[in-house]
Amino acid sequence: MRSLNSSLKKVVQGSLAVIASSALLVGCGQEEKQETKAASQPDKVYKLKLAETWGPNFPVFGDATKNMAAMAEKMSNGRLVITIDSSNKHKAPLGIFDMVKSGQYDLGHSGSYYWKGKVPNTLYFTSMPFGMTPAEQYAWFYHGGGMELMDQVYSPHNLLSFPGGNTDIQMGGWFQKEINSVEDLQGLKMRIPGFAGEILAELGAKPTNIAPGELYTSLERRTIDALEWVGPSLDLRMGFHKIAPYYYTGWHEPGSELQFLVNKRVYEGLPEDLQEILRVAMRTAAYDMYTQATHESGKNWVSMKSEYPDVQVKDFPPAVMSALKEANDRLLAKHAEKDELAKTIQQSQADYLQQVRSWTDISHRAYLNSQAQ
Amino acid sequence: MRSLNSSLKKVVQGSLAVIASSALLVGCGQEEKQETKAASQPDKVYKLKLAETWGPNFPVFGDATKNMAAMAEKMSNGRLVITIDSSNKHKAPLGIFDMVKSGQYDLGHSGSYYWKGKVPNTLYFTSMPFGMTPAEQYAWFYHGGGMELMDQVYSPHNLLSFPGGNTDIQMGGWFQKEINSVEDLQGLKMRIPGFAGEILAELGAKPTNIAPGELYTSLERRTIDALEWVGPSLDLRMGFHKIAPYYYTGWHEPGSELQFLVNKRVYEGLPEDLQEILRVAMRTAAYDMYTQATHESGKNWVSMKSEYPDVQVKDFPPAVMSALKEANDRLLAKHAEKDELAKTIQQSQADYLQQVRSWTDISHRAYLNSQAQ
Repeated sequence: MRSLNSSLKKVVQGSLAVIASSALLVGCGQEEKQETKAASQPDKVYKLKLAETWGPNFPVFGDATKNMAAMAEKMSNGRLVITIDSSNKHKAPLGIFDMVKSGQYDLGHSGSYYWKGKVPNTLYFTSMPFGMTPAEQYAWFYHGGGMELMDQVYSPHNLLSFPGGNTDIQMGGWFQKEINSVEDLQGLKMRIPGFAGEILAELGAKPTNIAPGELYTSLERRTIDALEWVGPSLDLRMGFHKIAPYYYTGWHEPGSELQFLVNKRVYEGLPEDLQEILRVAMRTAAYDMYTQATHESGKNWVSMKSEYPDVQVKDFPPAVMSALKEANDRLLAKHAEKDELAKTIQQSQADYLQQVRSWTDISHRAYLNSQAQ
Repeated sequence: MRSLNSSLKKVVQGSLAVIASSALLVGCGQEEKQETKAASQPDKVYKLKLAETWGPNFPVFGDATKNMAAMAEKMSNGRLVITIDSSNKHKAPLGIFDMVKSGQYDLGHSGSYYWKGKVPNTLYFTSMPFGMTPAEQYAWFYHGGGMELMDQVYSPHNLLSFPGGNTDIQMGGWFQKEINSVEDLQGLKMRIPGFAGEILAELGAKPTNIAPGELYTSLERRTIDALEWVGPSLDLRMGFHKIAPYYYTGWHEPGSELQFLVNKRVYEGLPEDLQEILRVAMRTAAYDMYTQATHESGKNWVSMKSEYPDVQVKDFPPAVMSALKEANDRLLAKHAEKDELAKTIQQSQADYLQQVRSWTDISHRAYLNSQAQ
C-alpha cells in the first residue's frame, strides 16, 4: 500500500496546516414531529464532514468514500449529508486520526497502520505480512473477534473504526534484478515503507522513502533497485511496467483494508436509524471497494501484459520467503513483549489464520491450482 | 449446493399447496407531512413479504434473509418491514420464482439456477462449473456486465434479481472410493443434482437424487458411492465425514451466489429512499453471507478434522478434470446454439474469467501457494 508519507508528498504541495472544520449537527429549522412513525427526527438534517487521506478523485480509494456518502444520503432521503474533503483541502493527510478524534472532522477515511507511530496497536488492522487474505480478514473482523479488538484500540481515543475497503492482495513490487537468494537482498535499495520496510531492513536491505512523483525516474535511473506500490489496479498509471522487468508476487500486505474513522460522540449523537444507515453504508462501501479492486486489477494487468509482454511475474524463492517470515516473527515478538494487548491481537490473528486457511487451502488454493493446469 | 428438490424434500412435509399472501403496502393511518425534508412519506409503513426456499432457521442461508430484513427495518426506522416465510409456511420452495412474479410475495430468497427448467438462462447466475470464484463473480456482476445480463433474463418476468449471498467454493463431494481415472466415473452412483449431474452423466456416471434425510444412510450403506452437498459450513451437521473417507475438492460450483428476487412493480411502488435501503440491505446481506460462509467453513473443517483425522482431502486427477471440462463445454455449446442470449452470457463470462483470473493467479494463487510451502 502507498505509505502515508507517500500520499502526503504526493498530494500536499504546501504546509501541513490543518483546516479546522467543525462537526455540524444542524437542524434545518422545521418543527419536530414526534408523532410520526417515520424517521426519529424527520425535520433534522445531519451534515457530517469526512476527511480522507487521498487526493481528490484518487481512483478506487476515493470511490469508496463517494460511494459511501451517496448511499447514506439516498437512504436517508437527504437527512444524512456527508461532504468529503480530500487532502488538497484539509492539507493534513497525516492528520486524519487527530482531526476525527478532536471533532474537527466527524469522519475519516485512511489506513489504520498509518497511526502505528502514535498508537502502536493500530498496526494490526490493515494487513499483516504473511497474514490473511481479504475474505479471511473480513471473517476475522466480523466473526473472529477482530472488530472487538479494534474497538479496544480505538475506543480510548473517542474513535470508532470500521473496515473501509480492501485493495486485494498487494504485489511484492517492481524489481530491476532478480532475487534468487537472501544474499540478493543485501544492500538492495527499495522503496518500501512501514512495517514491511522494517522486515527488509532486518535482512540487510536498504528501505528508502521517495516521493511518489519521483519514483518512476528513480527506478528508471536505478537510484533504487526496486519499489512496491499496490498492484495493477493502481500501478498501471504509474508506468513501472515500462521500465522494470520483474513483478514480484505478494507477501507483505495480503489484504490491505482501509479504514473509516468516526468520532464517537458524533456517532452517538445521531438517531438510531441514521447510525444504522451510516454503519451499513460504510460496510457496503468497504466490500464494494474490494470488488472494484478485483475488477481494476484484472483489467489493468491484462492491459500491462498486452503493452509490455516481456514483464515477468516472479515468486520470491522459498528460502527468501522463510527469511522474511522469520524476520517478521522476530519483530512481532518484540511488540508482544512490550504490550499485552499487542500479544492478544497477534494471538487472535494467528489462531484465526490457522483455522480459516485450512479451509482456503482446500477450496481456493486447490481450485485455482486445478484450473491453472 | 443443495438442490431445490433436496430442500423441498427436507423441509416440506406435506403438499405443495401455495399459501397466497398478498403484497401489503399499508399506510399506517397517519396524515402525510409533505413539508418535511425527511423521509418522502414519513407516515407510511411498507410491509413486504419474503418467501425463502429454505426451512426455518436454516443456517447461513437463512441468516442472510434475517440480516437483510433487520438492516432494512432499522435503517428505515420501521417504515420498511419485511416478514420472512420459510418453506414450512409457504409450502412451495420450488415456487419462489412464480410467487414473486405474480405478486403473491413481494420478495424471494433462492438460487437462480433452480429456475433453469422454466427459464433456461437463469442457469448462469448462481455459479458455473470451472467458472469464477466469489470475488471474481462479484466483480463480473457489478463491473463486468453481469447485472445487466441478469436483468435481461429476469425483466420479462416482472422480476428484479440481485446477488443474495455466496456459499464460497463448494466441495466436490464425499466419496467412498478414490477416483483415479475417467473410467472410475463409469457407473458411479452419485447424488449430484442439476447441471453438474448432467456433466457427470456425460462421462457415464449415474447421478441420482435422494432426499436429504436419507443421504447419510444411503452413503453409509453404499446405496450410493458418493454425494455432494455444500462444503464444511453445511456439511458438518450432515455427518458425512463419519462414514466417507474421501473429501474431494471443488470444480462444479466455485462460488455459488444465492439470489434475492423482487417483484418489479412492488419495487417501483416504493419511495426512492426505501428502494435504496432495500437495494443496499440486500447487497450487504449478500456480501455478509460470503463472509459468514468463509468463517463457518474454517471453523467446521477444523472440527471435522479433529474429530475424524483420517478424512483425506483429494483433488480429482488432471485427466478427470479435463474430461469434466470437455463435457461441460459440450453441454454449454448446445445451449448456446439454441439461444442467442445464452451465447452472449457464456461469452461474457468466459471473457471476464480470462481477464480476472490472470490477476487471481498472480495474487491469490501465488500467495496461497507460497504460504503452503
